[in-house]
Amino acid sequence: MTSHSQHGHAQPAAGHACSVADHAAAVADLLHAVRTADRTETLPLSQALGRGLVQDVAAPVSLPPFANSQMDGYAVRSGDVPDGGADLRIMPPVPAGSSPQPLEPGTAAPIMTGAMIPAGADAVVPIERAVPDHFVAAGDGATVKLPSVPAGTYVRPAGSDITVGERALAAGTFLGPAQLGLLAALGIPDVEVYKPVAVLLVATGDEVMEPGDVLEPGKIYDANGTLLEAAMRQAGLAVKRAGISTDNPDELRNLLRSKGQGVDLIVTTGGVSKGAYEVVRQAMADQAVEFLHVAMQPGGPQGIGTFDGIPFLGFPGNPVSCLVSFEMFLRPALATLLGAPAPRLPLRARLGQALTSPAQKHQVRRGNLRADGSVHLEGGESSHLMHALAGSNVLVHVPEGVSALAAGDEVEVWML
Amino acid sequence: MTSHSQHGHAQPAAGHACSVADHAAAVADLLHAVRTADRTETLPLSQALGRGLVQDVAAPVSLPPFANSQMDGYAVRSGDVPDGGADLRIMPPVPAGSSPQPLEPGTAAPIMTGAMIPAGADAVVPIERAVPDHFVAAGDGATVKLPSVPAGTYVRPAGSDITVGERALAAGTFLGPAQLGLLAALGIPDVEVYKPVAVLLVATGDEVMEPGDVLEPGKIYDANGTLLEAAMRQAGLAVKRAGISTDNPDELRNLLRSKGQGVDLIVTTGGVSKGAYEVVRQAMADQAVEFLHVAMQPGGPQGIGTFDGIPFLGFPGNPVSCLVSFEMFLRPALATLLGAPAPRLPLRARLGQALTSPAQKHQVRRGNLRADGSVHLEGGESSHLMHALAGSNVLVHVPEGVSALAAGDEVEVWML
Repeated sequence: MTSHSQHGHAQPAAGHACSVADHAAAVADLLHAVRTADRTETLPLSQALGRGLVQDVAAPVSLPPFANSQMDGYAVRSGDVPDGGADLRIMPPVPAGSSPQPLEPGTAAPIMTGAMIPAGADAVVPIERAVPDHFVAAGDGATVKLPSVPAGTYVRPAGSDITVGERALAAGTFLGPAQLGLLAALGIPDVEVYKPVAVLLVATGDEVMEPGDVLEPGKIYDANGTLLEAAMRQAGLAVKRAGISTDNPDELRNLLRSKGQGVDLIVTTGGVSKGAYEVVRQAMADQAVEFLHVAMQPGGPQGIGTFDGIPFLGFPGNPVSCLVSFEMFLRPALATLLGAPAPRLPLRARLGQALTSPAQKHQVRRGNLRADGSVHLEGGESSHLMHALAGSNVLVHVPEGVSALAAGDEVEVWML
Repeated sequence: MTSHSQHGHAQPAAGHACSVADHAAAVADLLHAVRTADRTETLPLSQALGRGLVQDVAAPVSLPPFANSQMDGYAVRSGDVPDGGADLRIMPPVPAGSSPQPLEPGTAAPIMTGAMIPAGADAVVPIERAVPDHFVAAGDGATVKLPSVPAGTYVRPAGSDITVGERALAAGTFLGPAQLGLLAALGIPDVEVYKPVAVLLVATGDEVMEPGDVLEPGKIYDANGTLLEAAMRQAGLAVKRAGISTDNPDELRNLLRSKGQGVDLIVTTGGVSKGAYEVVRQAMADQAVEFLHVAMQPGGPQGIGTFDGIPFLGFPGNPVSCLVSFEMFLRPALATLLGAPAPRLPLRARLGQALTSPAQKHQVRRGNLRADGSVHLEGGESSHLMHALAGSNVLVHVPEGVSALAAGDEVEVWML
């Protein structure tokens, strides 16, 4: 009731409604520019965690590069050992990392796990099955008694994991520990990845205060900035916070212009609904921005477009709506475009209790997925329930067209 | 076959075998010192992502702090509107963030989502149900026709998410986006968390080379260092790499002493088995370190103890064994002690194919969990299959005592 009294009764045009899938596609279109040639960089493996791979990677070597032993034991020619076993003369040992001499017929070479199988040898007898069952020195005609084993026993063939030239990782792969480990195993020390998306994050609203300040009557603390910054950082985005804008559209425009230099994306929270004081709608009045209602609960009111040419998304003002907007639209778009963050894996779970949902909307509830495959809703459907969100480990999806589900019905859940 | 010929035929004592649960408990015991009072710090919320909470946090305010409107509409006294509706005089609007005057009987106040419900009002009529269905200016006797609504309609009561004094988060909670968002919503700007665990990571083996070098015959590239560094960083550990030690135990000891200053934990890979060149066993000969065989496949050979008083874990030499060791022992211990990283949520899945497993061991396979709840094994049981690991999204558990499972049988899986 202060600075915005002059536009307190503005009447923004009602935006059109669209489906979740349509809006997801629009967000992906908006962000397409983040996947361009100049937005890649080549990093050592130790700095590439959580990035997306730009190009297919073909294996420059086979893995393993050579046939090697799966056990500590004796390398033998399997044909040298009849069914009843045989005493074989002991050769010098073959440690891992060495390049052994060919195995003479009628001999056995002590061999360590991972060591190269000598030419001529085709099987390994584990040390536990030898007599004696510990390694003894070669020379002076020392022998070991070994049982018969089929050719191939405890031999890891060259290329049994991947063969040279085979595609090791596909373009767009999310680089987690195992993918980086594979690149290392292939001898590849650095990798071309997409640069992080830089996002400017602005909360809005006269009612919103910074945590740590003394709460005034009628006001609430800003949870959206902290929540989205953490979600975005966890997803690999480079986040710049611009604090909280009041409901004065000039102030918001100035904030975006002063802090938005060089970012790839602007995200605001609040001010996109149909109320009388919708600062984001007002600040975007002369920009190529559309305000619409997505058939989703929570998170229906959304803004999308560009602000001074910079891609812009306007999320609603409640924290649960913000997180749902991020998970439903921004994360999947980035995962598809850049290979990072990793997309959420859709899982099936059985509802622990009945629920209702507006049939014309895709409802996203919060819940706890338990080890027995059941999911239990946390809090109600309302988008202000931050405590309930903090106690949840999944988002629970109730598709458009469904108005009620019973306990025991299957739902799709996304692990947070 | 170079520097270590003098101890090439050493015969380390066979370690005792123990169960997965026993070794997990031993690792937790070993690491207990990381949870001490001097290992905590207080951080602003924006720096606390991925940490574990030291103390219970009680809500210093209720959420919401005051009854507020869930919709843009009109605040009314529900008793003022009979079944057939009523024309009510329009009062000045109540934007979010304001502290409104009490609502006079027989009037309606335009109210925005999140705005404080005026004293006397007990319900909100959404703007869509008003006639006219858009906001008009107060004054000059302007009225709005509103339908009857029950008390409480579209009112979010104070404390409906959490009430002042209630426990908001428990000690040991992993701080993800939602938990940090809740702290922000409560007005708490910073939080006491455990410091990251500093780990020194050393790969060992004459056969192991750094990625990027030219591969010599009989040698392989080190995948363990990259794989474990990434897994540990993802889990919030502060990782210091000390490269690769040869099989010379003096070199390994010197490396640990020169690089291990101030770390909380030393982790080595390789050199813990029963072969003839087990550098970690040899380097630890005069330390309080035990080498044992855990009833697990892969990842059976393990070392545990202290090196010059620093907690020490010796993982096996194959990359899959290393990751399994991390996920089975180190991650759960840290999750329990420090609240971070988050523990893996055990999920149930149906096997897409049959498998066999050594009955006396807990087998950990790699697989792909699909949206239909089925899991499909990637690669065989061998611990060198890095490519197969990189194509997997879950670990598949086959407990001790189970020697075969059929397609369609349920298994426990952990999402990676």
